[in-house]
Amino acid sequence: TSQTCTTLSLTSEEFTTLHSLATASKSTAYCPYSNFRVGCCLLTTSGAYITGANVENASYPVTTCAERVAFGKAITEGHRGFKAVAVATDIAPPASPCGMCRQCIREFCELSVPIIMFDGSGGYSVMRLEELLPLSFGPEALGVQTRSSS
Amino acid sequence: TSQTCTTLSLTSEEFTTLHSLATASKSTAYCPYSNFRVGCCLLTTSGAYITGANVENASYPVTTCAERVAFGKAITEGHRGFKAVAVATDIAPPASPCGMCRQCIREFCELSVPIIMFDGSGGYSVMRLEELLPLSFGPEALGVQTRSSS
Amino acid sequence: TSQTCTTLSLTSEEFTTLHSLATASKSTAYCPYSNFRVGCCLLTTSGAYITGANVENASYPVTTCAERVAFGKAITEGHRGFKAVAVATDIAPPASPCGMCRQCIREFCELSVPIIMFDGSGGYSVMRLEELLPLSFGPEALGVQTRSSS
Amino acid sequence: TSQTCTTLSLTSEEFTTLHSLATASKSTAYCPYSNFRVGCCLLTTSGAYITGANVENASYPVTTCAERVAFGKAITEGHRGFKAVAVATDIAPPASPCGMCRQCIREFCELSVPIIMFDGSGGYSVMRLEELLPLSFGPEALGVQTRSSS
Ligand SMILES: [Zn+2]
Ligand SMILES: [Zn+2]
Ligand SMILES: [Zn+2]
Ligand SMILES: [Zn+2]
Repeated sequence: TSQTCTTLSLTSEEFTTLHSLATASKSTAYCPYSNFRVGCCLLTTSGAYITGANVENASYPVTTCAERVAFGKAITEGHRGFKAVAVATDIAPPASPCGMCRQCIREFCELSVPIIMFDGSGGYSVMRLEELLPLSFGPEALGVQTRSSS
Repeated sequence: TSQTCTTLSLTSEEFTTLHSLATASKSTAYCPYSNFRVGCCLLTTSGAYITGANVENASYPVTTCAERVAFGKAITEGHRGFKAVAVATDIAPPASPCGMCRQCIREFCELSVPIIMFDGSGGYSVMRLEELLPLSFGPEALGVQTRSSS
Repeated sequence: TSQTCTTLSLTSEEFTTLHSLATASKSTAYCPYSNFRVGCCLLTTSGAYITGANVENASYPVTTCAERVAFGKAITEGHRGFKAVAVATDIAPPASPCGMCRQCIREFCELSVPIIMFDGSGGYSVMRLEELLPLSFGPEALGVQTRSSS
Repeated sequence: TSQTCTTLSLTSEEFTTLHSLATASKSTAYCPYSNFRVGCCLLTTSGAYITGANVENASYPVTTCAERVAFGKAITEGHRGFKAVAVATDIAPPASPCGMCRQCIREFCELSVPIIMFDGSGGYSVMRLEELLPLSFGPEALGVQTRSSS
């Protein structure tokens, strides 16, 4: 983990906090349909931690995943730069963000942002956005200039 | 408005606060694709106000509307009962929640919850959820017991 | 039913065909997560019948409901005018389209279009779009002119 | 292209047909909001070609992308095995499927399925699903057995 932190430019305290908050956020999920709890924690470039969890709906497509709940909070609270995205589930190996959420991350983060996936037993994997969503579709394709730095 | 408040069992202070916060939240929207800002404010039965705004994506279906951003925050922060939902846009007559968001409200609110729609010039309309989404599809159809009171 | 047909400007043959096709389409659903089958059948103004069923995904929000599968087919096959929308499920009383699908219907149909909901035992309910999605949000709110007639 | 076909186990006729149909399908898109046309063509293991295009909505998240329209058709028409997925847009370099659509492809295709992305001037790129959506989230995570072969 110490080497992981160095590679990701995170302090070990930041890594530990991301782990704790993403894991703790699982208990805030509303998932009576899947019973599959997901917690998420974002670390902003200004040092703030923003959490989320999945919020499901009887009409399944109306569900909002943990990552999108967290970005919804973060963006509407004014955050624009992100240093890391952490997700936590109860399974091992750790679950990765679904494609829809990778697309959400793409809208707001640099391609190099690390995505840390914690499993239910203390283990984790890390991939950068450009690895999880290579050759991604983004605002440029629509000719729209969107990204602002914070 | 005084009579509206009586009908909706809201104090005039609550109504005014819903108006101010839903309207102010419009400025927190991320909507470079539609340029159509929507603000939302929920009032919980415990007296808390939770806001949201639309968060769009280059892949349009990955967009989260203002109402769902607000419910994502509220639910993952532990809120379960809601006294009112307010939305605000820049047009007149006021825009109503899209069908997808009415479905989201259905998951978490009583059928009698008032939905207050503020326009861009101080006017508003009010409808109850059962009027905006009659004969609604909900958790019961799936045989799932979900609603908890707060 | 004879009176229903008169009210809806449908022949009894059209009504019977909508019932048969919507019901038969349930067996084409892909719903390993909800095990809740939904069939849909659209009748176009040119007399064509277009069917669909729900297509779910391990990431629940990536699910496409039966109605949206049917409209996806119809619109990309060039159909623009619709005389009726029928949905069929296995429960009674009959399930209604979720809010997200009501919004989809709103994009492509007149407000008076009848939505026929068949239950699993031969019964049904009928409502017009303007009754299921009153005060709806549509293209006009965005200042976009979209509807074409066929 | 001849070498591409060998690598992808496609005949040059299949490749040409995928190109023609994906490109032609762009004209069936309903995209008054983005004005960004996308066409899609699937080749099933049984040799059938199924097309789709994007179908947008005034409520942006209710939009269905071209790929999901095509899979909605294919799955509800009984197809289960797929040899290739082709998408076509008007820009260059070619646009890739959004993350949400990569997740849809994941539900129904082998990880090695080729995704061919055609640009507006005759060029193209090819990636396999496992390259576009590495470490993907799928049915296994939910303990659901879903994939059937055709
Ligand atoms: Zn997700
Ligand atoms: Zn909405
Ligand atoms: Zn639906
Ligand atoms: Zn897509």
